[in-house]
Parts: sequence; structure tokens; C-alpha cells
Amino acid sequence: MNRTPLDWFPVLPWLRTYTRRSATGDLTAAATVMLLLIPQSMAYALLAGLPAVSGLYASMVPLVVYALMGSSPTLGAGPAALRSIMSLAAVSAVVAQPASTDFVAVSLLLAVMVGVLLLFMGALRMGFVAGFLSHPVLSGFVTASGLLIAMSQWTHIWGAPLRSQNLGVFVQSLWQGWHTFHGLTLAVGLGTMLWLGLAKRWLRRGLLPKAVPLLTMAVAIGLTQHMGWAAQGLAVVGHIPSGWMPWTLAPILDVPSRTVQALLLPALLIAVMTFVEQVSIAQSLAAKRRERIDTNAEMRAMGGANLAAGLTGGFAVGASFSRSVVNDEAGARTPMAGLFTAVLLLITALFFTPWLSPLPLAVLAATILMALGSLLDFGGFAKTWRYSRADFAAQALTFGVTLWVDLVSGLMAGVVASLLLHIWHSSRPHIATVGNVPGTEHYRNVLRHDVITHPQLLGLRPDESLFFANARYLEDHVAVAVATHADVRHVILQCSAINDIDASGLQSLQTIDQRLRAQGIALHLSEVKGPVMDRLQRADWLKNMSGQVFLTHHQAVTALLGQTNN
Amino acid sequence: MNRTPLDWFPVLPWLRTYTRRSATGDLTAAATVMLLLIPQSMAYALLAGLPAVSGLYASMVPLVVYALMGSSPTLGAGPAALRSIMSLAAVSAVVAQPASTDFVAVSLLLAVMVGVLLLFMGALRMGFVAGFLSHPVLSGFVTASGLLIAMSQWTHIWGAPLRSQNLGVFVQSLWQGWHTFHGLTLAVGLGTMLWLGLAKRWLRRGLLPKAVPLLTMAVAIGLTQHMGWAAQGLAVVGHIPSGWMPWTLAPILDVPSRTVQALLLPALLIAVMTFVEQVSIAQSLAAKRRERIDTNAEMRAMGGANLAAGLTGGFAVGASFSRSVVNDEAGARTPMAGLFTAVLLLITALFFTPWLSPLPLAVLAATILMALGSLLDFGGFAKTWRYSRADFAAQALTFGVTLWVDLVSGLMAGVVASLLLHIWHSSRPHIATVGNVPGTEHYRNVLRHDVITHPQLLGLRPDESLFFANARYLEDHVAVAVATHADVRHVILQCSAINDIDASGLQSLQTIDQRLRAQGIALHLSEVKGPVMDRLQRADWLKNMSGQVFLTHHQAVTALLGQTNN
Repeated sequence: MNRTPLDWFPVLPWLRTYTRRSATGDLTAAATVMLLLIPQSMAYALLAGLPAVSGLYASMVPLVVYALMGSSPTLGAGPAALRSIMSLAAVSAVVAQPASTDFVAVSLLLAVMVGVLLLFMGALRMGFVAGFLSHPVLSGFVTASGLLIAMSQWTHIWGAPLRSQNLGVFVQSLWQGWHTFHGLTLAVGLGTMLWLGLAKRWLRRGLLPKAVPLLTMAVAIGLTQHMGWAAQGLAVVGHIPSGWMPWTLAPILDVPSRTVQALLLPALLIAVMTFVEQVSIAQSLAAKRRERIDTNAEMRAMGGANLAAGLTGGFAVGASFSRSVVNDEAGARTPMAGLFTAVLLLITALFFTPWLSPLPLAVLAATILMALGSLLDFGGFAKTWRYSRADFAAQALTFGVTLWVDLVSGLMAGVVASLLLHIWHSSRPHIATVGNVPGTEHYRNVLRHDVITHPQLLGLRPDESLFFANARYLEDHVAVAVATHADVRHVILQCSAINDIDASGLQSLQTIDQRLRAQGIALHLSEVKGPVMDRLQRADWLKNMSGQVFLTHHQAVTALLGQTNN
Repeated sequence: MNRTPLDWFPVLPWLRTYTRRSATGDLTAAATVMLLLIPQSMAYALLAGLPAVSGLYASMVPLVVYALMGSSPTLGAGPAALRSIMSLAAVSAVVAQPASTDFVAVSLLLAVMVGVLLLFMGALRMGFVAGFLSHPVLSGFVTASGLLIAMSQWTHIWGAPLRSQNLGVFVQSLWQGWHTFHGLTLAVGLGTMLWLGLAKRWLRRGLLPKAVPLLTMAVAIGLTQHMGWAAQGLAVVGHIPSGWMPWTLAPILDVPSRTVQALLLPALLIAVMTFVEQVSIAQSLAAKRRERIDTNAEMRAMGGANLAAGLTGGFAVGASFSRSVVNDEAGARTPMAGLFTAVLLLITALFFTPWLSPLPLAVLAATILMALGSLLDFGGFAKTWRYSRADFAAQALTFGVTLWVDLVSGLMAGVVASLLLHIWHSSRPHIATVGNVPGTEHYRNVLRHDVITHPQLLGLRPDESLFFANARYLEDHVAVAVATHADVRHVILQCSAINDIDASGLQSLQTIDQRLRAQGIALHLSEVKGPVMDRLQRADWLKNMSGQVFLTHHQAVTALLGQTNN
């Protein structure tokens, strides 16, 4: 697989067999997605602290690159809420003034770094890194991010500057500036939110609900022009340069190299988050049609898209859940839909940007605020609490740190906490003392079943792979078990639940064997799985151990009872 | 357990039944241990960058505290090589000049911090933290530390200052200073090493080999006095104040608070290392007599001992393997042996310190160098390499970073690497497609066995607990498996190797179920373990899942085949 560079472009084979029928579906989908993408792309650019036009640029070349390299035919790539707030947070930590030249340059650099990291991880097939983000950590992080996005957008509705780096700062800023709001802006913002909410309720099927954001924009532009609201202090998007996307390598090269260092961790986290979201969306789309996606191709494709975004005036991009679903439902069949969308955006950028300049920022902010529902998952906390306290702890920690400190710390705290909790949990595995279920060859937990045991034999079943975190626990457990069973001559470890034994586990088995031997007790193993046995064969210990390896636990008990009775 | 403060002192019950016979054994053992402890304690004090007398202080009150609080009757507490070099490294990072007043104060503080951390972890029963140090990481760390100890002692044999913070610095220093050695010192040092090596070969049984280091010291003192070597430039221990151990709270309180912060990580690592070593030694001693140790009591006891060491002029202490074995073999039966040892050391400190001042440092360094063999485990690398490449990677990384950078970085690198490798490994579990072994009710891997399968049914057995690191892998695996089996109507997950399902695993099962449902496929579970089932019952999903939970895989296959054939 993937032996030639051409294999990185899965688009090439199907391009040859592209039909008119597919083209009709793809074009319809592209037009529908465009209705959503124009307002969303500009809103997310503003959310990322960038000029609105960056959103349009981020929706052109990156979409083309994803279409050429991705394995999911209908995934909607481009700007998305979570990545925008992460980009804002990362760049704000380095450059103070949003929308300044430096801020734009560092945002471009960040997108390039995310792209390079994804390409790198994709080339090395490192999709497993997504595993470090557990579901509860993700859920806590996304919910907190949703709240942070809401806080950051509220300043556009409020019509006066509010600080929103974290919850504490925001509350303080709102408290101190409760009287600073701009009446007209607040009215337009709240009015738009109300309208979007009602429209969502009333309109459920067909093209209309998808066109609502763009229609709202059009009406808002018309009203603002007609009433002269901009002159009354309503903030608007303002001049948007028209034309092709720029080539932005030069400003990136001007960024000092220590900035690259400062951005490394945020870039890595954005890359992994992007990959996780993207794969989850792509898998859902593929499942409906019994198709497969290639997670490594996905990683490379989004890497290419981010690289392209950074080099052509955009910012960090990813998969959008809403646009993917719309694309799929509107009839997209091939990646060509993405190409068509990009062309439509290019046409907008070339000819229609002057029309967009009177658009009130409050309307864009309202669009974002009303779309946040999908990010906030408060019910998930209760569910996790019921299912697992440890998972809840990780989730709550991630949520709290993200909201009260910052995004990077929140995500890192969650990752570290879930790793530690997992290790803590597996460091104290369930170890059952087993006995024979009368009349069968089965061996079960003496505490849960009415079973036969023998004073000379002690059967133990560790319900966990043996690895460094629990190796010593097993040593302790065996030591205590033997100390409390005075007549034991043989200890048999039933290995049916042991999926792996690492070097520490092996060392512990040797230690246990040595210590038991010092007490005149032999150690035996039973029901060792194939892959585990393959590995144990490579260790010298197996040849020198005091006891034997038995195929089944019953064989072990029968054979050893025979020995001790003679 | 441990409901009253008195329970923290397991010594109290047996003191009442103490007999003369035990006392004889304990006194003999104490005298034997003293022969080793006097040279060792001074040598390890010098290794820690402290005056020789600190070693005597560290062998008095700490031994009493351990005897009162510990659960292992014969463990030999006090100064030990590994802790001394770790203490040296930690304190050197804060204070430049070894043996200065500040250096001593910070070393005392470090011991207090180690003590408080151990007491804290012991009170909270946090013995599981030891699990983070895998055997390969420990082995790599201990071997590298052994080499670092050798390098740091070489300067005393060389008779001229050499720098030895890490291998690079040491080699450079030796290279630049190859001509700086002091002939007499080098001769005394090498001569002592040769003599100790030969004595070890010749003398194997009885009291004599244990007395060799002390006898060697005595001879060296006599020779140095007689020949006037000190005047010829042979470095000697010099004036050792005699008297009771000091009370050293005051200098500790003078240390600035930011030093506490800088020492926190090293103190934590020393605490965990100390606990790991101690438990491993105590378990080995206990196993021989079928006794049990209480790991939490051990943690508290060594915490108390370190606190005492810091407050009475000592430094970080732990368990010594060599002295524990000697103590045990020489007839120690109760913790009273430790108390007797402490008293013998006190007598030495009160009356015999003037005799020790002409002792050459080169002789003490030679004692340490010849005792390093037990730390160096190069064979362990080859063994680990054969058994597991991942474990070898962690071991080699720990070894390399410890030797070329520093001790704290080395240990941290090893811990982080083994965590990541473990997660990486369990993120891609073995998932077998299973079929029926003809004529039985057993289901086995289709790749390893000749089994019967049915096109409508797909049986999968994930050989790993489902948790965040592998949850998405399972999603991908099921998606691919279903995409390549066109006729599948039912997917049955055989859960016999699943010891736990965390919230991410549950979420993935739900996602898999949803995606399969979209394709008209039902998801079933079979052979779910009791504890796992208990937990799944708490989740809503179980009630809404598309398929059923079967007791055995065979029941599932029989029932579902019946359905699909009708």
C-alpha cells in the first residue's frame, strides 16, 4: 500500500469514470454547502481573530487539496468552530493584537505547522495518537470550548470590548462593563439570534433551512445599508479585498523561530483534535453506505489541506459536521463536490466581496452562537458520572481547566489525568481465587460460585494483562494469598484473561516463582493464550520455572492432585 | 485497619513478648551489620556530597524510627548508594558547592521532603505509584546510576578534581586532566580495590567477609598515620565531630521557599524509588519465612525514617540490600536488631570518631566502587531485547538519558516512554475473527484453526479491555470487517478477554451499534464477564442496543442462525 506518491491521491482512479449523473448530485450539494459555508467561513475567521476574508481563502485551496487526497467522498472540509478558537488561543499567547499583521502571519504559520504535523503523522501511520483523547476528555473539552466560543462572540453582540480568555476574566470583564453595551448592536444581535432560533424550529426539511444563514446575512446587509446603521456605531465586516487567494509564504518566513517552538504543543493538539473529529465524521458517513475510509489517508489529506490553508491566506481547517451532513444529504457522491464548492467560493471572492462589507459582525456572531448547541454536551457529564467515576473525574478536570485556565492546559490535563487513572485502575486488577464447579471442568471465582478447592492447590486468575503497573500488585497478592493458605504446595495461575505479559510482568513471574520456591511451593501456569505463549518461549525463565505450563486449568489440577496424593 | 495512631507502630505488640533468645540473635546481627554500616555510611555520605559524619547520623535515629514503624523485621535501613547519588544530583542543581553549609542544609531539607512525601503516600495508601516504574526502566536507571556513582568516586581514586555530572562531562574532564592524577592516592585507591576484590574471592563464609571493609579501614588508617601519607597529599576524612546527633530543624527553615519547589520532583522520584527498592527487598526477606509485609506500613516507616534523617543531621535514607541480607543471615529475628545497630552507631559517634579522621577518601571510594557490581545489570539489556522491543526501547532510553543528561530526566523519560509505549501497544489490540471448532461448543480464531463460519454472522473477539486508547481502533476494525463481509446481518462481540470497558469503550460500542444499525446489521455481545456486566447495566445503551447479550458465544450463534434461517 502507498508505495508510490500517486497512491496519496485516491482521487485519480475514479476521475476517469466520472459521469454526468454524479456531476449533477455533486453540483447540487456544492451549491447547498456554499449557502452555509459563506457565512460560516467568515464567522469562524472572525472567531479566530482574523479578517473575514481569511475564511473565504481557507475554503478554497484547502477544499481542493482535501478532495484530491481524502478517502471520504462527502466530508465537508474547511473552517470550523473548535479549530478557530484553538487557533485564536494559540496565536493570542504569542501576539497580543488580533487581526494585526503579526497575528495573521502567526495564524498562517500555525496552519502550516498543523498541516506538516498531520502529513508527518499520516506518513508514519500514527493514527493511534488519537487514542490519547478519551471520549470523556473530548466531551469535557468540546463543551468547555463551546462556552469559550460563546464568551468570545458575546463581545460582538454586546457591541463593546469584553475580555474572554477564560471564564474568570470574562465574568470580571462583564461585571465591570455591564453598562458598556451598545444598544443598536445588542438589538441586532439578539434579534438575529431570536430569528435564527425560530427559523430552526419552523423550517425542517428541504433547501430552505440551509439557506437561512445566507438569507439572514442578505437581509442584514440590506437593512444596515438602508438604515445607515454603520454610521450609528454598528460594527460591520468592512472592506473585503476581492480577487484570487494570496500566496502567503513570505509573511510566514518572517515569523521568528522561537514562535515556532511556542506553537509546537498547540499545533500538535490542534492536529490530533482535527484528526479525531474528522475520522469520527468520516466513519459515520462511510458506515451508511458500507464504505471504508483510510484513516492514514484522512490524516494526510487534512495535513495537505492545512498546509494549503497556511500558504494561501487561510487558517487551521478541519472537518465540519454540519456541512458534511448537508453535503451528503444534498446528493454529493464524489470528492468533486468539494472541488465545486471551492470554485463557488472562488467566484464569491472574485466578484461578490464588495457586497459583503456592510454585514454586521453581530449577525455573524449570532450565527455562531446559535450553532453551538452541537458542541455543548452537559448530559454527557451525568452519563459519565453514572458509568464511571474515574472517567467523570477526567472529564470534569478537562472541562474546569479548559474553562478557567486555557484550552491547551485543559486538554493536556485531561490527557494526563486519563492516562494516570487508567494506569491506576489497571494497577489493582481483579484477581479471583478459583475452584472447580462440581461436575464440570470449569473453574470459577470462589466468592461468586459454590466450588471445590484443595488445601494443597491454590488457583488464581488475574483478570488483567500483566504489565509494569500491576506486576508488583500480583507479587503482593500472591505473597498474601500464600501466607494465608498454610498447606499450599502448588500455585496455579490461570492465564485466560491475560492478553499480554511485558518485561515487568515476566520479571514479576520470575520473582514470584523464586519466592514461592524458597517456601517449597511450585508455580504453574494454565490456559496461556497463543500470542502470550509465543513470547514467553523467548524467555529463559520458562525452561527453569519450578512448575509446568498446562493447556487447561482442569488438567493442571488433576495432574497436581495426583502428584501430591502419591 | 490502622484506625488509631498506635496502629502505625507495629513494633508495640511484639515488644511485650520479647525473649532473651531473640535478643541474642538480634545483637549478633546488629554487630555484624555495624561492621558494614560504619564504612558504608561514611562512604555514602561523601557520595552525597556531605561530610562523612552525616552518614553516621543517618544511621542512628532513622534506624530507630524504621524499627518502630516498619513491617519487615530484618530490613536494613540507612544510607544507600542510589539515594546518595540522587540526593547529590538534586542538591547540586540548587547549590553549587558540595559540603558547604548551604549544601548540607538543602540535603537535610530534601530528606525531610522525601519523608513527608512517603508519609503522605503511605497514609493515603498510594503504593500503586510504584507501578509507574517498570522493571526495564528501573534496570536501565539503576545501571546508569551505578556508572554515575563510579564516575563520581573516581575523582577520589584519581586524587584530583574531575567533573562527573554526566558521561560527557566526565570523559571530557578525564581527557583534559589525564596528567593531573596524584600518584600516592591512585596507588592507595587501586591497591584497596585490588585487595577488596581478592578478599571477596577468597573469603566466602562466616563473619570475616563482612568485616573486611571495616578491617581494611583500620589497616588504611594505621598505614596512613604511620607513613604520614596525609602530609604527602593523600586526602583523608579529617576531623569528625564526636557526640550525639544534632537537631537540624533550624538550617532547614533557613532554606528559601523556591528551593522547596525546585526539589519537589527529585524528592518525589527519590521517594518512589526508595519505596520500590524497599518493598522488593522486604518481600524477598518475608517470602523465605512465609511472612507478609504491609506495603503501606513500609511506606510510612521509611517516610518517618527520612523525616528523622533530615531533622537529625542525616540525608535521604532507604533500604540496603546488602545489609538486609547480612542482618537476616546473621540471625536477626525482630526489629530490635535495628535498634541495637543504631545504638552501636551512636557509641561510635560518641567515642570513636577521632580515630576515623586519618581514613583516606580513596579507601572509602574503593569500598563503594567494589560494591557497585550489584547495581550494574548489562545482561538485563540483552534479556529485555529478546523478550520485548518496546520494553528495550524504554530501558535504553532511560539508561541513555540518565547517563548523558541527568538522573531526574532519565527516570522521567523512562516513565513517560513506558506509559506511551504501553498505550501504543494496547491501542492496537489483537482482534480475532472466530468460528466454531467442529463438534464442540468452542469458538476459535479462523486464522489459527479449522473452524465453521456462517456468512450472515460475524464473530469477533477483541483480546484487550476496551478503553480510550483502543476504542476507536475497534470502531475501525468492525467497520472494515463489515465492509469486507457483504452478507453479514449480525455482529457478535465475544467479550471473554475484555476485563474492563471504560466510558470511551462504551461510547465506541454505541457508535459501532449506530453505524451497524444504519446498515441493517445488529450488534450482539457474548460471554461478558461479571464485573463488566455490572457496569454495563448502569448504562442506558444496554437497553436500547440493536442486539442481545448472550451468556456463551455458542448460544448466540445457535439463536441467531435460527432467526436468519426462518
